[in-house]
Amino acid sequence: MPAGDTIHLAPQTGCGLRLARGETLRVISPTGEQVADVAAFAAADPREWLSSGRTIDYGGSIYVETGTILYSNRSTPLLTITADTAGRHDFLLSPCSAEMFRRLYGVEGHHPSCFENLATHLDPLGIPPDAIPTTLNLFMVVTPDPETGRIDISPPSSRPGDHVDLRAEIDLVVGVTACSAELTNNGALKPIDVEVHRL
Amino acid sequence: MPAGDTIHLAPQTGCGLRLARGETLRVISPTGEQVADVAAFAAADPREWLSSGRTIDYGGSIYVETGTILYSNRSTPLLTITADTAGRHDFLLSPCSAEMFRRLYGVEGHHPSCFENLATHLDPLGIPPDAIPTTLNLFMVVTPDPETGRIDISPPSSRPGDHVDLRAEIDLVVGVTACSAELTNNGALKPIDVEVHRL
Repeated sequence: MPAGDTIHLAPQTGCGLRLARGETLRVISPTGEQVADVAAFAAADPREWLSSGRTIDYGGSIYVETGTILYSNRSTPLLTITADTAGRHDFLLSPCSAEMFRRLYGVEGHHPSCFENLATHLDPLGIPPDAIPTTLNLFMVVTPDPETGRIDISPPSSRPGDHVDLRAEIDLVVGVTACSAELTNNGALKPIDVEVHRL
Repeated sequence: MPAGDTIHLAPQTGCGLRLARGETLRVISPTGEQVADVAAFAAADPREWLSSGRTIDYGGSIYVETGTILYSNRSTPLLTITADTAGRHDFLLSPCSAEMFRRLYGVEGHHPSCFENLATHLDPLGIPPDAIPTTLNLFMVVTPDPETGRIDISPPSSRPGDHVDLRAEIDLVVGVTACSAELTNNGALKPIDVEVHRL
């Protein structure tokens, strides 16, 4: 996409795009209180993918913040978080999926989901659905209890206009969604804006 | 492997094996205080892999215990934990790797690692190294701080003979290691025993 343009993601939708090394992906929550899932793959070889496990290990934290480097399964830095006005994000959970809505909420039949939206928009860019790993869930507030391990999912703490900047360290294929899960987003599904900047 | 046989994993080694639906993989820490990493894939299609993100989401916990179902990226139950005498295990971190030893501990040159051991033993079974996801790190004690997100890695709390039983819910390819990271295992690298039972 041309630098400076904005992709407006309607609620429960997603996009896929190519990001060149040095470009910055800005993910904006125009209304606040809305999660955006991000997946990333090396453009040169989509078998290299953004790894929550390596990022948590190398950063020594389950949370990410300004300065956090996001690593691939091959330990390559893929993205660096260069700005973050929101403060809390999740890197523990898979993107929501039709199966998730069925298992956790008893939804029968089709329900829009981040997994479907990522799969739809990444497949034409050479990323098969089975390759979609645990996503970086921007603006999502997931807090584990260190004693029991139980996770608490709270409404996003993001306010209108909060954004996260992620600088590409190599050429990437990226997927971004406006999350489809009602409860995760405090009961109201909202849009997400995506921009590419050359800062 | 024949049911009832034991694979003795020397320190810093690993193995790969096929596990039929209904068989139980028993991972034993004969000395205690030793981590064992486990990876699993659907035998029918190795693009289906054990997913930490889906397991944490569906189970509502970052920890696993007796009764926990371990799900694939396609939301298929792959394994059920049917017994656990140890109590704490990690599902957040990637297997240790040469890159991890270099980045976190400044080790130059070769260092044995769970990633290398999994890659070596899974590749002949049709699993390429890039497909190895975040592993289930049995007996590993990783505790996040819910406020800061920082993780604390403590010595395994397992005692000699502690074991975990994992029942295969479909036909699987499985990799198991005796973890190679000195600090994770309280300074002494120890063996792991692996058995397959038809219970």
